[in-house]
Amino acid sequence: MRVNSLVANLATPPVPEVQRWAKAYDGDLGPVIDLSQAVPGYPPHPDLLAWLAEAAGSAACAGYGPIEGEAPLRHAYASHQAELFGADLAAANVHITSGCNQAFVTAAMTVAGAGDSLLLTNPCYFNHETTLAMLGIGVRYVSCTAANGFLPEPEAVAAAIGDDIRALALVSPNNPTGAVYPPDLLSELFDLCDRRGIWLILDETYRDFLLPGEGPPHGLFSRRGWENTFISLYSFSKSFCIPGHRLGAVTAGEGIVGHVAGIMDNLQICAPRAPQVAVTRGLPALTGWREANRREIAARADVLRDVMAAAPGWRLDAVGAYFAFARHPFSGKDSREVAEALARKAGVLTIPGGFFGAGQDDYLRIAFANADADGLHRFADRLTRFSL
Amino acid sequence: MRVNSLVANLATPPVPEVQRWAKAYDGDLGPVIDLSQAVPGYPPHPDLLAWLAEAAGSAACAGYGPIEGEAPLRHAYASHQAELFGADLAAANVHITSGCNQAFVTAAMTVAGAGDSLLLTNPCYFNHETTLAMLGIGVRYVSCTAANGFLPEPEAVAAAIGDDIRALALVSPNNPTGAVYPPDLLSELFDLCDRRGIWLILDETYRDFLLPGEGPPHGLFSRRGWENTFISLYSFSKSFCIPGHRLGAVTAGEGIVGHVAGIMDNLQICAPRAPQVAVTRGLPALTGWREANRREIAARADVLRDVMAAAPGWRLDAVGAYFAFARHPFSGKDSREVAEALARKAGVLTIPGGFFGAGQDDYLRIAFANADADGLHRFADRLTRFSL
Ligand SMILES: Cc1ncc(COP(=O)(O)O)c(C=O)c1O
Ligand SMILES: Cc1ncc(COP(=O)(O)O)c(C=O)c1O
Repeated sequence: MRVNSLVANLATPPVPEVQRWAKAYDGDLGPVIDLSQAVPGYPPHPDLLAWLAEAAGSAACAGYGPIEGEAPLRHAYASHQAELFGADLAAANVHITSGCNQAFVTAAMTVAGAGDSLLLTNPCYFNHETTLAMLGIGVRYVSCTAANGFLPEPEAVAAAIGDDIRALALVSPNNPTGAVYPPDLLSELFDLCDRRGIWLILDETYRDFLLPGEGPPHGLFSRRGWENTFISLYSFSKSFCIPGHRLGAVTAGEGIVGHVAGIMDNLQICAPRAPQVAVTRGLPALTGWREANRREIAARADVLRDVMAAAPGWRLDAVGAYFAFARHPFSGKDSREVAEALARKAGVLTIPGGFFGAGQDDYLRIAFANADADGLHRFADRLTRFSL
Repeated sequence: MRVNSLVANLATPPVPEVQRWAKAYDGDLGPVIDLSQAVPGYPPHPDLLAWLAEAAGSAACAGYGPIEGEAPLRHAYASHQAELFGADLAAANVHITSGCNQAFVTAAMTVAGAGDSLLLTNPCYFNHETTLAMLGIGVRYVSCTAANGFLPEPEAVAAAIGDDIRALALVSPNNPTGAVYPPDLLSELFDLCDRRGIWLILDETYRDFLLPGEGPPHGLFSRRGWENTFISLYSFSKSFCIPGHRLGAVTAGEGIVGHVAGIMDNLQICAPRAPQVAVTRGLPALTGWREANRREIAARADVLRDVMAAAPGWRLDAVGAYFAFARHPFSGKDSREVAEALARKAGVLTIPGGFFGAGQDDYLRIAFANADADGLHRFADRLTRFSL
């Protein structure tokens, strides 16, 4: 029987594929070091676990909830953002989703349908690409290279905005490169999108891992009329260490929130309620803990820089909040071959650069935040001894 | 800035709209009687709440899980179905989703893309219609009427299968009518779909509320090569009373499960994990409790029949598992007007027939399972005194 060709042609999900490679590793060098999927290497705060348990065990969370999300969470997250960005944001600007992948799905569907296109970067987060592919939404790319710190250049973006483009979708801090887009660049890209009549969708999943002491990630929420151009996406997975509970958010103008609600009602009625109740408590209460994690992960980035400097032939072309994009010494080889060999022989899981776009085969993505300093030393040690 | 017209044109989600009407009710006749959204009127089993709490509070459920669902739940649900249907079903036939709306989204996308069409019944479950609308998938209808117990007639289905049709999507027990499709009819429709090269998607959200003592809901899983024609959808929301935890399933051939995984990875990576762990325990353990609920709801159907017989001018054209489709005495009026007046003046929430399809304005949908016998008596009493 016939299957939708857009779905039949989807690439197999990358993370499980990579994880399967590890099964062939014989353990000779010690336990597997998993730097593939972006998962914090530490557990959630015990208080959050207690709140999750309390909410999940209550009959109150068992019924259907509001499509847009629990009012207290929408309020708490709006306040959190208002403070972080120094901007005027209300609960009505927030739609809670089941994670940030779903936030992207709803945002993409809101602005584009089959036959329209979105502009992504190359390299890009693979689920953005596959989401658009399965929806029949076209994808065009703005190339980002090491030469420019993997930042999208406004001229290149401007040149790529054709008639079919409905939005520019960016990720900052970036997955896969770790690059942090400076506020000025984002502001310039906002202006460009505004002028050209397209949306700017910004996936801020790794926002809480910016270096401590830096200013706000961007000033877009303070731009006049931002609601008509800007849509921000967020994940509670990383910063609260709860990807298994599936919680994310869209922040946008009220009209867009209404459209997202129409989509969400179909997609799954509402996000799971118990995690919403728990995170409402965690948002103000765990600020210190999240701040400590941010510093810890920044410290891991420093460790990674140090240890990689000692790995011959390997080069960190980008390292930022959560991820590093490492150039491997086997130029000319398919990155899948390199990553697979690294998994099978050295028990180190990374994601091949090629999974993030054409022409990225010289790279491997390293989710360094998954490992502590010890783990990163062992990682570099294995890299040093590794040959194809 | 431009918005996807398919999304901009979506009807506002019906349930919140109906619930807003109740705000205008002055309480004169007692508390609101909510027979709108299908939510069991009793809480989850206390053991299930305890298991939900235990799982949600564990660090083990905090990480990302397998896209297809937790292996133990896939296994437990496959065994449950194997027993219920007397069929050979394995974990590989099961994909866990965040509820049955999402199961439908993934099934629909697997078989159809923008420009294709699906065949639904009229009346139909509104989220099926809006899901397809937002995806640019066309919808055609097979009319079901009181004259035929709201069952789709195979000749009418056959006549409606045009070249663009990729699947027939049915709901049994039906929402909104409550009609239970007999196994023979489903078998005949399976043959028809098979012959005509289209999929049969069956939403079995209310399967656990069939009358006690009846045989299996259908024999489709025992048909040779069923994997090439049949896709079954299920919800853990109703029968375990946990819609707020968002859990459903697709049962299909392994190939389809693989395609659904490709879609799910984009939609939201995986369903929330803690409810999966809890329901794995509940599936075998709460069989008796679910059976008791099934009997309770069957008893409520009987009460409804009795009390409605006493409400002048009202007629139950269909009553089945969970829902009744009631003909109101204000023929010629818009069903929205009737339902809204009933909500505002009498504090009774029902869903207007017109929300389920064209030509259904003589009806209101009554989710009678939400109320106990007492509530149903009070409901009929309010109906009796009600005038537009
Ligand atoms: C850029 C980006 N967006 C979204 C997600 C998905 O996050 P969530 O777990 O909230 O769906 C990820 C996860 O790795 C990501 O890297
Ligand atoms: C026919 C039908 N399918 C699916 C659903 C959605 O169920 P879930 O809560 O599992 O998403 C409902 C809920 O009312 C329904 O009536």
